[in-house]
Amino acid sequence: MTVEQFATRHIGPGPDDERRMLEVVGHDSIDELMDAAIPEVIRWHGTLDLPDPATEAETIAELRALAARNTVAVSMIGLGYHGTHTPAVIRRNVLEDPAWYTAYTPYQPEISQGRLEALLNFQTMVTDLTGLATANASMLDEGTAAAEAMTLARRASKSKSGVYVVDADALPQTIAVITSRAEPLGIDVRVLDVERDELPAEFFGLHLQYPGASGAVRDHATLVEAAHAAGALVTVAADLLALTLLRAPGEIGADIAAGTTQRFGVPMGFGGPHAGYLAVRSGLERMLPGRLVGVSRDADGNPAYRLALQTREQHIRREKATSNICTAQVLLAVMAGMYAVYHGPDGLRDIATRTHDMAARLAAGLLAGGVDVADVAFFDTVTARVPGRAAQVVAAAAERGVNLRLVDADRVGVSCDETTTVAHLAAVWEAFGVPSFDGAVDPTLPTGLRRSSDFLTHPVFRSHHSETAMLRYLRRLSDFDYALDRGMIPLGSCTMKLNATTEMEPVSWAEFAHIHPFAPDDQTVGYREMIGQLESWLAEVTGYDAVSVQPNAGSQGELAGLLAIRSYHASRGESHRDVCLIPSSAHGTNAASAVMAGMRVVVVACDDDGNVDLVDLDAKIEKHRNALAGIMVTYPSTHGVYETGIASLCAKVHDAGGQVYVDGANLNALVGFAKPGKFGADVSHLNLHKTFCIPHGGGGPGVGPVAVRAHLAPFLPGDPLGTHADATPAISAAKYGSAGILPIPWAYLRMMGAAGLTRATGVAVLAANYVAARLRGHFPVLYAGNKGLVAHECILDLRPLTKATGVSVDDVAKRLIDYGFHAPTMSFPVAGTLMVEPTESEDLAELDRFCAAMIAIRAEIEQVGSGAWPAGDNPLANAPHTAAMVSGDEWPHPYPRSVGAYPAGVDRAGKYWPPVRRIDGAYGDRNLVCSCPSPEAFED
Amino acid sequence: MTVEQFATRHIGPGPDDERRMLEVVGHDSIDELMDAAIPEVIRWHGTLDLPDPATEAETIAELRALAARNTVAVSMIGLGYHGTHTPAVIRRNVLEDPAWYTAYTPYQPEISQGRLEALLNFQTMVTDLTGLATANASMLDEGTAAAEAMTLARRASKSKSGVYVVDADALPQTIAVITSRAEPLGIDVRVLDVERDELPAEFFGLHLQYPGASGAVRDHATLVEAAHAAGALVTVAADLLALTLLRAPGEIGADIAAGTTQRFGVPMGFGGPHAGYLAVRSGLERMLPGRLVGVSRDADGNPAYRLALQTREQHIRREKATSNICTAQVLLAVMAGMYAVYHGPDGLRDIATRTHDMAARLAAGLLAGGVDVADVAFFDTVTARVPGRAAQVVAAAAERGVNLRLVDADRVGVSCDETTTVAHLAAVWEAFGVPSFDGAVDPTLPTGLRRSSDFLTHPVFRSHHSETAMLRYLRRLSDFDYALDRGMIPLGSCTMKLNATTEMEPVSWAEFAHIHPFAPDDQTVGYREMIGQLESWLAEVTGYDAVSVQPNAGSQGELAGLLAIRSYHASRGESHRDVCLIPSSAHGTNAASAVMAGMRVVVVACDDDGNVDLVDLDAKIEKHRNALAGIMVTYPSTHGVYETGIASLCAKVHDAGGQVYVDGANLNALVGFAKPGKFGADVSHLNLHKTFCIPHGGGGPGVGPVAVRAHLAPFLPGDPLGTHADATPAISAAKYGSAGILPIPWAYLRMMGAAGLTRATGVAVLAANYVAARLRGHFPVLYAGNKGLVAHECILDLRPLTKATGVSVDDVAKRLIDYGFHAPTMSFPVAGTLMVEPTESEDLAELDRFCAAMIAIRAEIEQVGSGAWPAGDNPLANAPHTAAMVSGDEWPHPYPRSVGAYPAGVDRAGKYWPPVRRIDGAYGDRNLVCSCPSPEAFED
Repeated sequence: MTVEQFATRHIGPGPDDERRMLEVVGHDSIDELMDAAIPEVIRWHGTLDLPDPATEAETIAELRALAARNTVAVSMIGLGYHGTHTPAVIRRNVLEDPAWYTAYTPYQPEISQGRLEALLNFQTMVTDLTGLATANASMLDEGTAAAEAMTLARRASKSKSGVYVVDADALPQTIAVITSRAEPLGIDVRVLDVERDELPAEFFGLHLQYPGASGAVRDHATLVEAAHAAGALVTVAADLLALTLLRAPGEIGADIAAGTTQRFGVPMGFGGPHAGYLAVRSGLERMLPGRLVGVSRDADGNPAYRLALQTREQHIRREKATSNICTAQVLLAVMAGMYAVYHGPDGLRDIATRTHDMAARLAAGLLAGGVDVADVAFFDTVTARVPGRAAQVVAAAAERGVNLRLVDADRVGVSCDETTTVAHLAAVWEAFGVPSFDGAVDPTLPTGLRRSSDFLTHPVFRSHHSETAMLRYLRRLSDFDYALDRGMIPLGSCTMKLNATTEMEPVSWAEFAHIHPFAPDDQTVGYREMIGQLESWLAEVTGYDAVSVQPNAGSQGELAGLLAIRSYHASRGESHRDVCLIPSSAHGTNAASAVMAGMRVVVVACDDDGNVDLVDLDAKIEKHRNALAGIMVTYPSTHGVYETGIASLCAKVHDAGGQVYVDGANLNALVGFAKPGKFGADVSHLNLHKTFCIPHGGGGPGVGPVAVRAHLAPFLPGDPLGTHADATPAISAAKYGSAGILPIPWAYLRMMGAAGLTRATGVAVLAANYVAARLRGHFPVLYAGNKGLVAHECILDLRPLTKATGVSVDDVAKRLIDYGFHAPTMSFPVAGTLMVEPTESEDLAELDRFCAAMIAIRAEIEQVGSGAWPAGDNPLANAPHTAAMVSGDEWPHPYPRSVGAYPAGVDRAGKYWPPVRRIDGAYGDRNLVCSCPSPEAFED
Repeated sequence: MTVEQFATRHIGPGPDDERRMLEVVGHDSIDELMDAAIPEVIRWHGTLDLPDPATEAETIAELRALAARNTVAVSMIGLGYHGTHTPAVIRRNVLEDPAWYTAYTPYQPEISQGRLEALLNFQTMVTDLTGLATANASMLDEGTAAAEAMTLARRASKSKSGVYVVDADALPQTIAVITSRAEPLGIDVRVLDVERDELPAEFFGLHLQYPGASGAVRDHATLVEAAHAAGALVTVAADLLALTLLRAPGEIGADIAAGTTQRFGVPMGFGGPHAGYLAVRSGLERMLPGRLVGVSRDADGNPAYRLALQTREQHIRREKATSNICTAQVLLAVMAGMYAVYHGPDGLRDIATRTHDMAARLAAGLLAGGVDVADVAFFDTVTARVPGRAAQVVAAAAERGVNLRLVDADRVGVSCDETTTVAHLAAVWEAFGVPSFDGAVDPTLPTGLRRSSDFLTHPVFRSHHSETAMLRYLRRLSDFDYALDRGMIPLGSCTMKLNATTEMEPVSWAEFAHIHPFAPDDQTVGYREMIGQLESWLAEVTGYDAVSVQPNAGSQGELAGLLAIRSYHASRGESHRDVCLIPSSAHGTNAASAVMAGMRVVVVACDDDGNVDLVDLDAKIEKHRNALAGIMVTYPSTHGVYETGIASLCAKVHDAGGQVYVDGANLNALVGFAKPGKFGADVSHLNLHKTFCIPHGGGGPGVGPVAVRAHLAPFLPGDPLGTHADATPAISAAKYGSAGILPIPWAYLRMMGAAGLTRATGVAVLAANYVAARLRGHFPVLYAGNKGLVAHECILDLRPLTKATGVSVDDVAKRLIDYGFHAPTMSFPVAGTLMVEPTESEDLAELDRFCAAMIAIRAEIEQVGSGAWPAGDNPLANAPHTAAMVSGDEWPHPYPRSVGAYPAGVDRAGKYWPPVRRIDGAYGDRNLVCSCPSPEAFED
């Protein structure tokens, strides 16, 4: 009996398409093509040991069964993770809307104005609430945001000290991440009771929690003054909801604020994903790590948004880096920003007030019942002292469906949030053994810290409070953008493949969405079983022995992998091994991660074919033999080639005592055909948002698990709440990182099975070679491996054309918008080129549409070259064309409007129109504005 | 403590908006406005007795609890309702996508090309599979489709006979609906074993089931010949999935095919909604009831779709009607059509083959185990004979989680579908007490009936088989359309208010979606409790004593209400009462429904103010006093006015022995302020898709419950599976009609509560009066009641302007598209006017945007009037302007492009562009094409 295979839905080309593509490429079958393309030395000829593929319905049923083994309790644990009501209109029209979640990082700003505006709202929300000048477009979580704040402080501080002081009342997982990050950088972290302990004489930074993990709201003004006097910078890790009622960090002198926006409508998801935030005072904005959205202007002089200061992978500071972050949490930042847009300042204040009132009532009830509640001001969290009884109280609450925080044997923490009800309070009181309380309660916010300043004053936070208005605003913004739901996004290295609905749906289920990362184990059986299976399947696919899903971005996976190498050497008494070889073609992130891991970067040259220069490699190994920690290479290379020298490279490094790190960015070209863990590598990180179908979400969430051979397994990331005896570093704030989206790769692997995964790889390589074959006559294709074949992507060289005609890669990229495409990757890994990765999900019709567009553009370039069109005024230079432009009353251009608007048969009815013309990025960098511009700016 | 109220999300204007609107209208408060607007004689001054409003989160929790009391069993009952896998990409991007579900009926075709194309796919799917010439855009369900086929046959047949022969192996609920419909029309239904019984000498039609309810697949060719020889038409009620393997009805000579498309990816929903279908042979297409999509051309001569033959409410055949249907099931038809697009012909054939193989295996196992299985050919359903044991077998299966059909004491029916697994078969075998079977099985389709003809040959059914391609096709089509997610749809009478996400989400839950309408009561406890609550709340809101949610459209509610009146008179020995008074201003549907209920329509005049002419009413009552069945009036009137004479009208009709039917179309102007059941009416139908937030879905689903006073309660719709002793008619095929979407109004009522509902009414009336006040100086506002106030809508009179300038309502309606609006209702109830209903959900900014557009258009009309712009070539005559038009290389028009494209400050970046120019409807009616045109038709 035929049973529908998901693989036929995931993979675009059907059998007829495949035949035609093979003909063009000149091979008889995919097997034969792959035999030709992949060097035998790395080739693995087995069949992946994975369960037989399940149908979509079976997969949903299995995930339902796993979900049913989780328990959704009322979460009052706090510690930065809170229950929240995601407004349904935001859940359905952002989190569950392909127009948002299949979008790519907004590197092509003209077709990304919607999410850029949404991120600008997020940044404005953060700056308003923190009282600081500039916020970036989100961080990975509070722990990593706090760690980034530390390195930022070190870079900005005038103090020469290597000491960083951390408030003992900081979130424990934040302390773990800070400590883990500090160690390889040689930073001396001192965790102090900042209210009582004396500050060191010298220190470069101070981290304060506001409110503290205990719930205490303290006035830190004196501490801030003391820190500044010492030349240190102050980071305040602040709860944004509390800040609607409390004085802002900027108002008490903080230089930096960091934290999470999870409780702004983003489900806890057993730890993530959600958007962390980072904001800085004026003067520090150019040191902000990560992505920053700014306002600039387009070719008509209209305001337009784009990523400011070029904070992208290829511009990362490499060897000089103080941060390796390149992903944000865009989808989640959009949700949090929209939560603020929907509630507005009054609504947020109401939610905060209600949350505080609940906590105050809770405390009053405990006090009335004779429980010792710390006599401090608090916002939402109460710490109760029940000597010797804490575990018993926590257990009694759990029996009543409520999770509390077991602080220690004597203390219990209880956090309220917007979902807290009087019934929850009653359950807590019962657990403490005190009677219910319904007396009068006074709010207990400290008068001196009450917020008096206004916030969210921009009209966007005051105009979309009805669901109808909100729905339309979301539609308007998403309509501005080009995502996978409109057409192909042929980005080299970024692998914009299908994000199937069946993979996405479970993310919204309560049993996955509403689990606190520190919930008791017996409530997370299904989650942990799913994660265990996923880790084992990823190990099977990569040939490694152990996997950790904790890193919540590829960059964090790199850091985790390099830290594992570092720890491994240290465990063998070889701490002096600190040189990391990195080929010149590598992602900038690689070098930055190595620096973060305390290594020295030594660059290895590439030869003319783009391969690692084995002679130079020998020389570098020789030079650093005793200090060699390892090498970090991408395979297939960033040039999209299966290098034949990889096995030899691994052997050379191993011979010298080094470890081999294979960057898994291009793993999708290997799955089913080769296993890094078997061809010589010791460690890799994977990008679940590339190879394993987690959507790019407009620039995050990403998930970057780290996979290692057995000898490195003891050095995988540890539990951020683990004991100090646990030497393994905390990479993310939660043990399983962005657990909430792991059902996506789980479902993908479950539905594809061995045959489907292998076929996907084959079709991806076929598609890349098909595009290369069709376009080779029009643009030189750079680099190829065996038999002139590329791997899963190909590089089109525009440099000769640019030299001859002045038409740049930028012009071609923008012109592709007029043809209804997102541009390929520009100028990476080679300046002046376009890197195209079609993926297996695009069918032949779409591949042909792309090839036809590129060929037509080639002909347009000829027109410029021949002088038929002037260099400065032609469809390429003026691209992209907006509807307003081509329908303008004046048309001063030397080509017809129709050529601008509808080149070469572009579908007229379904045409995608960008909302702005080409954006002047440099203008915006010179005039940095990173919060919402006034409505007047948009007036004609 | 503040708790967020849903009402503030549902209602657009906030307190500031409200103040400004009241100022313009000239009243101090909404209460005072309503006191002035509503005649005291109908005013109800109580507070609705409804539960206190719940928050969105609480409402979801309560619905979860209700849902948990349903049991999702494996459904093998069959009888036209089958398990099906909704492709996730279709669920998320159609059923759960506001761009599809908030759209209105495509009366403005230029901004509805997406759903029109989707419906054309549906029609093409039906005609291809049935082998007939023309199919309409869907029917309400199979039962009503079959009943419509009967009346169509009667109209088309040359036979003078009143006899309609129905196959005894037809679905029992179909027989019930046919019988219920036939009785008032004087049709004599004969249910015969058509294989054995002799046909009557004369009959006008024959209804055959294919395959039969028993599962039997019979060759009906001889019967068809015999029927044709008698001058009768033949309807074949056919299962579309079976037709992928079986000869098509058209190929065996059928004149009509009718049925359901539920199993094409639409969940059972405890009975609905899903799309029925109706198809006819060539020559009958102009008699098709309901809506028909056809191909025509736009002003540029390009192919464009629109509703053909003007089958809309205002064009219904009124007193000459043979059908009152005006709603389709568009959203569900779109889903079913997309299911065919996604699977394609091969995929559907695979699903059918697999389903058949399962049934064949099931039968083989039963036979091998000694169970007597009827020796007939079958497709998916097996009827087993287990003398005296049937109930026991059914119970044993239920214990194993499988529902079977209890045919009678001796027979059990088992239906397979695409969700059937071998595990399900094993459970069934166990229930029968036979061993599992894994021997070889031969398919048992009758060789003489195997399909040899091709189907779904159009490229649309062969191009979107990957999820990526499907997603983009859905996005492309939805982008063509203007729905509530883009902006206001100010349709008079149609009440395009918010369809809140929280109301919509439960519709997708398995516990509501996957319940068979004939599931045992103990599996539907939650459903029935929810329905009971909903019915009681609707009774409270309307002031009636009993409500039935069975009618699955407003028209069916009308029929149900009139049949209740008819039955009531009959029960009192007054069967001669058959005159139904209907004001001249009524919806065309009213008259058609009266005819369907066996009544004679007598029209009552309206006076110059649009009110029922009480003098003419007296005269008509006097003339028909003894025959008076009742009166059918809309309140507030279709003119949007609270008529003061309503109480007097009710009294007069009652005095004459008649019953009063108040059409509830405009109930949203009464909720909380007046109750039809208290001010004199005996019966109403409600439109849950107007007042109670079920989305319009692009033209369905609708739900039209009927509400009655106690004396009519015994005559509410009955159970279609009820015994013949049950005299009440079956209005729909399922007892609770479109139960699957009843969580929507339930949630709306639950979240709004008494205060929210009352405020919604007040704000709706305020908004209509605000628009009237702002536009009165620019367009005369027709009709008003107390103190010059309108009710919830207002009529703008364009006739003087049209007379003076030639600019028509059509021109204004199309020009509004250029301004980014859906047009108001055109020429109803008064030709040459626009009726505007802003609803309570539009905020002041959107109301002002609309008023500004209308005022700007008024100025444009002046330009035509003054001769500044020629009559035939101006922005109004050329509206709507497409992007292709305003960016054309030539611009021959006497006004600038910018005036065409971006009149009066229309937002350039977010501009909605219609995909086609103005459509020539008449051309399409002359050249009727109702299936997908070839791709070549679209070439430039």
